[in-house]
Amino acid sequence: MLLTTEQIEQKLVLLNQLSVGNNPWQFLQGQLIKTFHFATFDEALSWMNDVAIYIEKFDHHPEWLNIYNKVEVKLMTHQEKGITHLDFDLAQKMQKLA
Amino acid sequence: MLLTTEQIEQKLVLLNQLSVGNNPWQFLQGQLIKTFHFATFDEALSWMNDVAIYIEKFDHHPEWLNIYNKVEVKLMTHQEKGITHLDFDLAQKMQKLA
Repeated sequence: MLLTTEQIEQKLVLLNQLSVGNNPWQFLQGQLIKTFHFATFDEALSWMNDVAIYIEKFDHHPEWLNIYNKVEVKLMTHQEKGITHLDFDLAQKMQKLA
Repeated sequence: MLLTTEQIEQKLVLLNQLSVGNNPWQFLQGQLIKTFHFATFDEALSWMNDVAIYIEKFDHHPEWLNIYNKVEVKLMTHQEKGITHLDFDLAQKMQKLA
Protein backbone atom coordinates (compact mmCIF):
# COMPACT_ATOMS: atom_id res chain seq x y z
CA MET A 1 0.00 0.00 0.00
CA LEU A 2 1.38 3.39 -0.98
CA LEU A 3 2.51 5.65 1.82
CA THR A 4 1.49 9.30 1.83
CA THR A 5 4.13 12.03 1.82
CA GLU A 6 3.28 12.71 5.46
CA GLN A 7 3.77 9.05 6.39
CA ILE A 8 7.05 8.98 4.47
CA GLU A 9 8.37 12.05 6.30
CA GLN A 10 7.44 10.53 9.67
CA LYS A 11 9.10 7.22 8.87
CA LEU A 12 12.20 9.02 7.59
CA VAL A 13 12.70 10.67 10.96
CA LEU A 14 12.61 7.28 12.68
CA LEU A 15 14.85 5.67 10.07
CA ASN A 16 17.43 8.43 10.35
CA GLN A 17 17.65 7.96 14.10
CA LEU A 18 19.44 4.74 13.19
CA SER A 19 21.83 6.74 11.01
CA VAL A 20 25.47 6.77 11.82
CA GLY A 21 27.13 10.05 10.84
CA ASN A 22 25.69 12.99 8.97
CA ASN A 23 24.35 11.30 5.91
CA PRO A 24 20.59 10.78 6.26
CA TRP A 25 18.11 9.02 4.00
CA GLN A 26 16.27 11.53 1.85
CA PHE A 27 12.98 11.43 -0.04
CA LEU A 28 13.85 12.84 -3.45
CA GLN A 29 12.12 12.49 -6.82
CA GLY A 30 9.74 9.90 -5.44
CA GLN A 31 12.54 7.68 -4.12
CA LEU A 32 14.31 6.97 -0.85
CA ILE A 33 17.95 7.84 -1.47
CA LYS A 34 21.14 7.43 0.49
CA THR A 35 24.85 7.07 -0.26
CA PHE A 36 26.65 4.62 2.02
CA HIS A 37 30.38 5.11 2.53
CA PHE A 38 32.72 2.29 3.52
CA ALA A 39 36.44 2.05 4.24
CA THR A 40 37.19 -0.09 1.17
CA PHE A 41 35.64 -1.58 -1.96
CA ASP A 42 35.76 -4.95 -0.24
CA GLU A 43 33.63 -3.68 2.66
CA ALA A 44 31.14 -2.10 0.27
CA LEU A 45 30.69 -5.38 -1.60
CA SER A 46 30.45 -7.39 1.62
CA TRP A 47 27.65 -5.11 2.75
CA MET A 48 25.85 -5.58 -0.57
CA ASN A 49 26.06 -9.32 -0.05
CA ASP A 50 24.69 -9.01 3.47
CA VAL A 51 21.81 -6.86 2.22
CA ALA A 52 21.13 -9.34 -0.61
CA ILE A 53 19.68 -11.82 1.87
CA TYR A 54 16.90 -9.35 2.68
CA ILE A 55 16.45 -8.35 -0.95
CA GLU A 56 15.68 -11.99 -1.69
CA LYS A 57 13.61 -12.42 1.45
CA PHE A 58 11.45 -9.35 0.75
CA ASP A 59 11.59 -9.91 -3.02
CA HIS A 60 12.21 -6.19 -3.25
CA HIS A 61 15.13 -4.79 -5.21
CA PRO A 62 17.09 -1.57 -4.89
CA GLU A 63 18.71 0.42 -7.64
CA TRP A 64 22.27 0.64 -6.32
CA LEU A 65 25.42 2.06 -7.83
CA ASN A 66 28.80 0.98 -6.51
CA ILE A 67 31.85 3.16 -7.12
CA TYR A 68 34.91 1.96 -5.20
CA ASN A 69 33.98 2.31 -1.48
CA LYS A 70 30.58 3.99 -2.03
CA VAL A 71 27.12 2.61 -2.72
CA GLU A 72 24.39 5.01 -3.84
CA VAL A 73 21.01 3.46 -3.07
CA LYS A 74 17.62 4.37 -4.55
CA LEU A 75 14.48 2.65 -3.31
CA MET A 76 10.93 2.71 -4.59
CA THR A 77 8.13 0.22 -5.24
CA HIS A 78 7.80 0.22 -9.02
CA GLN A 79 4.56 -1.79 -9.12
CA GLU A 80 2.90 0.82 -6.93
CA LYS A 81 4.75 3.79 -8.44
CA GLY A 82 5.68 5.13 -5.03
CA ILE A 83 7.01 4.32 -1.58
CA THR A 84 5.60 1.41 0.45
CA HIS A 85 6.54 -0.27 3.72
CA LEU A 86 8.82 -2.57 1.67
CA ASP A 87 11.11 0.35 0.90
CA PHE A 88 11.37 1.26 4.56
CA ASP A 89 11.85 -2.37 5.60
CA LEU A 90 14.78 -2.71 3.20
CA ALA A 91 16.19 0.73 4.10
CA GLN A 92 16.17 -0.25 7.76
CA LYS A 93 18.05 -3.49 7.09
CA MET A 94 20.61 -1.60 4.99
CA GLN A 95 21.06 0.87 7.79
CA LYS A 96 21.52 -1.80 10.44
CA LEU A 97 23.96 -3.82 8.38
CA ALA A 98 26.14 -0.83 7.43
CA MET B 1 49.33 4.63 -20.48
CA LEU B 2 46.36 6.19 -22.23
CA LEU B 3 45.07 4.44 -25.32
CA THR B 4 44.27 6.46 -28.43
CA THR B 5 40.76 6.41 -29.89
CA GLU B 6 42.08 4.26 -32.72
CA GLN B 7 43.57 1.74 -30.27
CA ILE B 8 40.33 1.71 -28.29
CA GLU B 9 38.26 0.99 -31.40
CA GLN B 10 40.59 -1.86 -32.37
CA LYS B 11 40.49 -3.39 -28.91
CA LEU B 12 36.69 -3.07 -28.79
CA VAL B 13 36.37 -5.22 -31.91
CA LEU B 14 38.44 -7.96 -30.26
CA LEU B 15 36.60 -7.63 -26.96
CA ASN B 16 33.21 -7.85 -28.62
CA GLN B 17 34.19 -11.09 -30.36
CA LEU B 18 33.92 -12.56 -26.87
CA SER B 19 30.41 -11.12 -26.58
CA VAL B 20 27.50 -13.41 -26.14
CA GLY B 21 24.35 -12.01 -27.73
CA ASN B 22 23.75 -8.64 -29.32
CA ASN B 23 24.88 -6.36 -26.57
CA PRO B 24 28.41 -5.11 -27.32
CA TRP B 25 30.75 -2.97 -25.28
CA GLN B 26 30.65 0.64 -26.46
CA PHE B 27 33.01 3.57 -26.14
CA LEU B 28 30.77 6.44 -25.06
CA GLN B 29 31.56 9.72 -23.30
CA GLY B 30 35.12 8.62 -22.64
CA GLN B 31 34.09 5.36 -20.98
CA LEU B 32 33.72 1.69 -21.86
CA ILE B 33 30.08 0.87 -21.27
CA LYS B 34 28.03 -2.29 -21.27
CA THR B 35 24.85 -3.56 -19.64
CA PHE B 36 25.00 -7.20 -18.57
CA HIS B 37 21.72 -9.10 -18.30
CA PHE B 38 21.27 -12.14 -16.08
CA ALA B 39 18.39 -14.50 -15.37
CA THR B 40 17.96 -13.37 -11.78
CA PHE B 41 19.19 -10.84 -9.20
CA ASP B 42 21.06 -13.66 -7.53
CA GLU B 43 23.01 -14.42 -10.71
CA ALA B 44 23.80 -10.74 -11.21
CA LEU B 45 25.22 -10.47 -7.70
CA SER B 46 27.17 -13.73 -8.01
CA TRP B 47 28.78 -12.36 -11.16
CA MET B 48 29.70 -9.15 -9.33
CA ASN B 49 31.38 -11.24 -6.65
CA ASP B 50 33.29 -13.23 -9.26
CA VAL B 51 34.44 -10.02 -10.94
CA ALA B 52 35.45 -8.55 -7.56
CA ILE B 53 38.45 -10.88 -7.40
CA TYR B 54 39.89 -9.19 -10.48
CA ILE B 55 38.89 -5.72 -9.31
CA GLU B 56 41.04 -6.35 -6.23
CA LYS B 57 43.80 -8.03 -8.21
CA PHE B 58 44.05 -5.19 -10.76
CA ASP B 59 43.25 -2.56 -8.11
CA HIS B 60 40.96 -1.08 -10.74
CA HIS B 61 37.33 -0.28 -9.97
CA PRO B 62 34.26 -0.04 -12.18
CA GLU B 63 31.27 2.19 -11.76
CA TRP B 64 28.47 -0.38 -11.80
CA LEU B 65 24.76 -0.03 -11.25
CA ASN B 66 22.69 -3.06 -10.31
CA ILE B 67 18.95 -3.07 -10.90
CA TYR B 68 17.38 -6.46 -10.31
CA ASN B 69 18.93 -8.79 -12.93
CA LYS B 70 20.93 -6.11 -14.78
CA VAL B 71 24.34 -4.57 -14.17
CA GLU B 72 25.29 -1.43 -16.10
CA VAL B 73 29.07 -1.13 -16.16
CA LYS B 74 31.17 1.96 -16.89
CA LEU B 75 34.94 1.70 -17.03
CA MET B 76 37.62 4.34 -17.24
CA THR B 77 40.98 5.08 -15.63
CA HIS B 78 40.32 8.17 -13.55
CA GLN B 79 43.98 8.87 -12.73
CA GLU B 80 44.75 9.06 -16.44
CA LYS B 81 41.43 10.64 -17.43
CA GLY B 82 40.88 8.13 -20.18
CA ILE B 83 40.98 4.48 -21.20
CA THR B 84 44.02 2.30 -20.46
CA HIS B 85 44.81 -1.40 -20.77
CA LEU B 86 43.43 -1.82 -17.23
CA ASP B 87 39.93 -1.03 -18.49
CA PHE B 88 40.21 -3.60 -21.24
CA ASP B 89 41.72 -6.18 -18.88
CA LEU B 90 38.79 -5.81 -16.50
CA ALA B 91 36.24 -5.69 -19.33
CA GLN B 92 37.63 -8.95 -20.69
CA LYS B 93 37.33 -10.67 -17.30
CA MET B 94 33.76 -9.39 -16.93
CA GLN B 95 32.94 -10.73 -20.35
CA LYS B 96 34.45 -14.16 -19.68
CA LEU B 97 32.76 -14.52 -16.30
CA ALA B 98 29.29 -13.52 -17.55
